[in-house]
Amino acid sequence: MSARRITAQPLTREAFAPFGAVIDKAGGAPRPMNAGMARRFHDLARVEVAGESAQVVVGLVEAKPYPLPLTLGLVERHPLGAQAFLPLTDAPFLVVVCPDERGRLSRPQAFLTAPGQGVCYAMNVWHGVLTPFGAPQDFVVIDRGGPGVNLEEFVFEEPWSIHLPE
Amino acid sequence: MSARRITAQPLTREAFAPFGAVIDKAGGAPRPMNAGMARRFHDLARVEVAGESAQVVVGLVEAKPYPLPLTLGLVERHPLGAQAFLPLTDAPFLVVVCPDERGRLSRPQAFLTAPGQGVCYAMNVWHGVLTPFGAPQDFVVIDRGGPGVNLEEFVFEEPWSIHLPE
Repeated sequence: MSARRITAQPLTREAFAPFGAVIDKAGGAPRPMNAGMARRFHDLARVEVAGESAQVVVGLVEAKPYPLPLTLGLVERHPLGAQAFLPLTDAPFLVVVCPDERGRLSRPQAFLTAPGQGVCYAMNVWHGVLTPFGAPQDFVVIDRGGPGVNLEEFVFEEPWSIHLPE
Repeated sequence: MSARRITAQPLTREAFAPFGAVIDKAGGAPRPMNAGMARRFHDLARVEVAGESAQVVVGLVEAKPYPLPLTLGLVERHPLGAQAFLPLTDAPFLVVVCPDERGRLSRPQAFLTAPGQGVCYAMNVWHGVLTPFGAPQDFVVIDRGGPGVNLEEFVFEEPWSIHLPE
């Protein structure tokens, strides 16, 4: 087995906690609202932003599927804001993050979402690009708008190979 | 025809502009991202928040359907933040807003979304509660978290009756 081979794990709050938040209904008891006609799973993720004139903006993303196993050649991070993605269709997608140990990137970790799960990458967390597989997928994205350089990329010397759980 | 009868209009950017933003893909040309593997419809809505320690939070809402015609007995507003709702299923839903003319609420306006459309109510805009019809509907909600009183309600002396377009 290649040392560059990574097997994705199911996405859970516990495993993902060092990197950000999981957005799904499993996070706690919902609050009733609108005289009992609705219930709200509150505060699943906080979209923190930094810098002057920073705002939180909502966008939509159409993403093309990647072939599997996924070849991970780079990761990126946003030093000025968190970034949340929630799928608008029920297919799972791959979530890749990479711990940063005092400025050195260590082995990436990969997660497979359950249908409907989204994530919020915390500010400054290295992560892979949006990677659906099998079919195109639409997402809502909630992140920072405003002036300033909010993107860093890191290209691996050798790519990683990300596999679905067996 | 009763003076309290309101017919919903199709939701368009132009008609909704005084009340907030429409979240859909019709808002402009998308930007390519991720080396052409995705395209982003950017900055469709800004979720403005006010007050100290205010944050933007992401939640999920399960909403029960209302019978039609909709009986609109009250509207609410959030003086400290905008509030965005995007449906997670492709059914339309009703959006009701109410102009405020120097502290006096005037005749509500009702809109019917196209499938997939969401809205962001601007800070302090009077609006009805989340009103799917026909079947329950899930939404992602993006709004303000933090201390402070961020809810005001206004109860109409006589309810309004909101009808779908003919």
